[in-house]
Amino acid sequence: MIRLELALDLDYDIAPPGGDFIFNIHAARTQRQHVLSESLNLNQNLATQVETEPATLNRYLRVQAFAGPLKVSYRATVDLLHHFAPPGNIDELPVARLPASVLSYIYPSRYCQSDRLQQVAMREFGQRSHGYGRVQAIRDWVLQRTTFTPNTSNANTSAIDTLIEHVGVCRDFAHLMIALCRALNIPARFTTGIDYGADPALGPTDFHAYVEVYLGDRWYIFDPSGTAIPMGFVRFGTGRDAADVAFATIFGTVGSAAPVINIRAVAGADGQVRIPHHCADAISTDG
Amino acid sequence: MIRLELALDLDYDIAPPGGDFIFNIHAARTQRQHVLSESLNLNQNLATQVETEPATLNRYLRVQAFAGPLKVSYRATVDLLHHFAPPGNIDELPVARLPASVLSYIYPSRYCQSDRLQQVAMREFGQRSHGYGRVQAIRDWVLQRTTFTPNTSNANTSAIDTLIEHVGVCRDFAHLMIALCRALNIPARFTTGIDYGADPALGPTDFHAYVEVYLGDRWYIFDPSGTAIPMGFVRFGTGRDAADVAFATIFGTVGSAAPVINIRAVAGADGQVRIPHHCADAISTDG
Amino acid sequence: MIRLELALDLDYDIAPPGGDFIFNIHAARTQRQHVLSESLNLNQNLATQVETEPATLNRYLRVQAFAGPLKVSYRATVDLLHHFAPPGNIDELPVARLPASVLSYIYPSRYCQSDRLQQVAMREFGQRSHGYGRVQAIRDWVLQRTTFTPNTSNANTSAIDTLIEHVGVCRDFAHLMIALCRALNIPARFTTGIDYGADPALGPTDFHAYVEVYLGDRWYIFDPSGTAIPMGFVRFGTGRDAADVAFATIFGTVGSAAPVINIRAVAGADGQVRIPHHCADAISTDG
Amino acid sequence: MIRLELALDLDYDIAPPGGDFIFNIHAARTQRQHVLSESLNLNQNLATQVETEPATLNRYLRVQAFAGPLKVSYRATVDLLHHFAPPGNIDELPVARLPASVLSYIYPSRYCQSDRLQQVAMREFGQRSHGYGRVQAIRDWVLQRTTFTPNTSNANTSAIDTLIEHVGVCRDFAHLMIALCRALNIPARFTTGIDYGADPALGPTDFHAYVEVYLGDRWYIFDPSGTAIPMGFVRFGTGRDAADVAFATIFGTVGSAAPVINIRAVAGADGQVRIPHHCADAISTDG
Repeated sequence: MIRLELALDLDYDIAPPGGDFIFNIHAARTQRQHVLSESLNLNQNLATQVETEPATLNRYLRVQAFAGPLKVSYRATVDLLHHFAPPGNIDELPVARLPASVLSYIYPSRYCQSDRLQQVAMREFGQRSHGYGRVQAIRDWVLQRTTFTPNTSNANTSAIDTLIEHVGVCRDFAHLMIALCRALNIPARFTTGIDYGADPALGPTDFHAYVEVYLGDRWYIFDPSGTAIPMGFVRFGTGRDAADVAFATIFGTVGSAAPVINIRAVAGADGQVRIPHHCADAISTDG
Repeated sequence: MIRLELALDLDYDIAPPGGDFIFNIHAARTQRQHVLSESLNLNQNLATQVETEPATLNRYLRVQAFAGPLKVSYRATVDLLHHFAPPGNIDELPVARLPASVLSYIYPSRYCQSDRLQQVAMREFGQRSHGYGRVQAIRDWVLQRTTFTPNTSNANTSAIDTLIEHVGVCRDFAHLMIALCRALNIPARFTTGIDYGADPALGPTDFHAYVEVYLGDRWYIFDPSGTAIPMGFVRFGTGRDAADVAFATIFGTVGSAAPVINIRAVAGADGQVRIPHHCADAISTDG
Repeated sequence: MIRLELALDLDYDIAPPGGDFIFNIHAARTQRQHVLSESLNLNQNLATQVETEPATLNRYLRVQAFAGPLKVSYRATVDLLHHFAPPGNIDELPVARLPASVLSYIYPSRYCQSDRLQQVAMREFGQRSHGYGRVQAIRDWVLQRTTFTPNTSNANTSAIDTLIEHVGVCRDFAHLMIALCRALNIPARFTTGIDYGADPALGPTDFHAYVEVYLGDRWYIFDPSGTAIPMGFVRFGTGRDAADVAFATIFGTVGSAAPVINIRAVAGADGQVRIPHHCADAISTDG
Repeated sequence: MIRLELALDLDYDIAPPGGDFIFNIHAARTQRQHVLSESLNLNQNLATQVETEPATLNRYLRVQAFAGPLKVSYRATVDLLHHFAPPGNIDELPVARLPASVLSYIYPSRYCQSDRLQQVAMREFGQRSHGYGRVQAIRDWVLQRTTFTPNTSNANTSAIDTLIEHVGVCRDFAHLMIALCRALNIPARFTTGIDYGADPALGPTDFHAYVEVYLGDRWYIFDPSGTAIPMGFVRFGTGRDAADVAFATIFGTVGSAAPVINIRAVAGADGQVRIPHHCADAISTDG
């Protein structure tokens, strides 16, 4: 069990007549991710509503804000009760045995055109024995051939662009890995959290995009950009790709500052601080 | 209430060592679409499993078939208890009031790149008063500028292609209409059924793709290709776009014949046959 | 006859071991564009070579520069002997009568996918009577539906993107107009010069991209972004699209400052200063 | 010296009111490709005009045909005086020394988006020593990773599609090789001829697309699809990519049969028949 304390501060400047926001900044509540306590503060006096989407467990905060500054502060203490498993024991499922609820994650999506990458995927990974190791090979391949380079991609950049251009940020690494998994009929989804453990040289603590792949009987975590420590990932949102899980979707004319984020391991119920670290086991925070 | 009888025959030729299929050919069971009776027959002696995806109510039939011919027959009798409403009374919802379960339908998807069509959508429909009428205007605009032309599109054709090239089939009309709705933050989804009432000159009865748009408190039916009679639509699958709801997803080397489909209105409990017809009301088979 | 004086200053910072440049900053020498005098100065002591490409008359300056600062100054005095013609007298040529040397300008190119815009072009302009007026209508249509917005496009932006997204800079307006002309089998090319007469609110004098269309027996000038005064355009380069006529193509690791450009009308041989102005005639600086 | 006899028969059915054609089916006349004799016959009594484009030496036949059948027969006897050179002696040219007339062949074009393939090209070929061998390595790489598969590509398929999808026909192999060469600043162009020596299992003798690359002081021939014998290539047209050099560009409503083509080596002036064969030397038919 790892206990993390999370502080998130967002700062906007809204032009008249005001702006609508859909935030996905609440830690998901799952069987293995317990939100012990949380608080939300806004500088504007607004009714807020947090709703949980049943299929994904994403928690959406809707805000209709007035013109002027909007400051959003979220604080949470979260326990991660990871499922650990030795990679060698984890199989892929044949399509015939995939649960209906994961089927949509083998289909292509806005940024993950898996239908067009079947040749690449078969060529590179078709001969490998099935299982966690094949997915790890996909993750390593994406990491090795792609250079993490800020400002090389934009809101239109897709897995095909990243495959060709060999550059991107965490979002792009994730899209490419997802597209390759789906091209092999392995369900894969796009998940957002905080880049726990990232090298400070990459900049201040930030949101992070990583991948979950359905193997055996659950979703396992992979970090294709290799910039952070998966054991420290608190899940906010999950979806088909970045189109589904922006931390903020904004309607209106709104300026924004960079988010200010802090995350740290704190003492658990037994008084011990357990620090997330890289490990050889497969890990999951899924049920 | 309309009662329809449906017969669906699929015919495949499977190369060794066999093939896996995910079919979505079972009529959905919803509050307004009652499946009175149904039967499924396969020429191969196979265990079959039909599973309902909870978020969409899509019913997936998984089949692992042997090499050789595979014949699949589905028969169903379905009652449609339409919700009818005068178009003038149906509003769009502001983003702040959309249910969380429909949010994913305002985001872009594989074939509906709504993020890139915001300028077109605002230019053409931004000044119109909000509501059912605006969505109807989008539907009419798509229908008017696009020519129904078989064999002009393929599995890679997206809403942007159809916008530019002005040709396509029902799938393409649906993608373009969906992308334009989402570009205006109106939830829209891709739904499959049978082209009830289509002109026989277009060929034998076939599968059909149409659009559902979330307005007021439910999903309303639109038929942007204008080739069929919406009141006769029995819903099979619904999803983000065609990537999600193929009637058959096939893994293996498999040849196929054209599906043979029959659908007709039959007498209801009161002995009366009610024939689907074009009508001015908005219609929905959603809960 | 209009006499213009042109001053162009480019400023680079070249990392070791040095950089190669292909510049296209020399005014073209044509029958109607006379370069009376010109000078080129570099701060590095380098052999330079200016070569004229026979098909386009583009003049290419090749420079192999050492690491360190590179400053390039070009000065020229140019006489423009415009061909003026009343638009109503200028016809399109049928394909059968196009000179072989202009044929390549009816084919699609990197940024002008005219092959995909035939439906749009026929729909919008197919019914218009042929001639200069139809081309002017294309230019007006592009100008009216596209908003000049810096930083909305990049090196990958093509005519299709601009058609869909309705924003861009002069390069993008030009690509869209060219693609539409070619879709109607009207030869069109991409030409670079200086944005003579541009509103200073748009920033300092800069390079400019505009369009030449082959009508009757010569190339006529069109300015689809409408930001400058065509009568003041000194032609540098012309080609299929922006891929062919960058003012500087750079090989190596090189930083650059914004070019500093001045252009002004000066007294001709008769002592009179003639100022370029908007005019209703068709104009050409082609032979 | 190799002497080839060529017979080409095209067969069209033209709807009223008639059709315009631009054919590029005349063998180019170059210093190393001598057209000893040729004849053109049409079943319609039409004025024909053959014009040579000076930059490419492509010979364009323009035909304005009446409605009804159009049959075009072209016969030629052509001497190929190949330039042969040992590959090890042939260098790439630095950009600074490329002739102006070949510069446009380092820029991207409609189907060869070399600007987007710089990372791939540098990664795969950046470390190799420059020269003919590097270009041969590009050719081998394209051949090895791409499967020749009829009907997998269409008029919209580009080098990026072929890179991703690993399938195509000779046109697609050529586009991918060209794009990779240009990404390394090596001039490359698209050339059309007849698939001399192709395996009859691939179908009857057909048009062929191959690549010419500028190395040393001339254009050398490469055949990335590996389906034919380069020493037997009679050049018709050359250009930036397939957009420039269709053997027939057709305006109007026209049906067509497959071309009927025959090509064979015949006795030269000395009475000897020399049969084209695969050889290890670099070959060129350029000046």
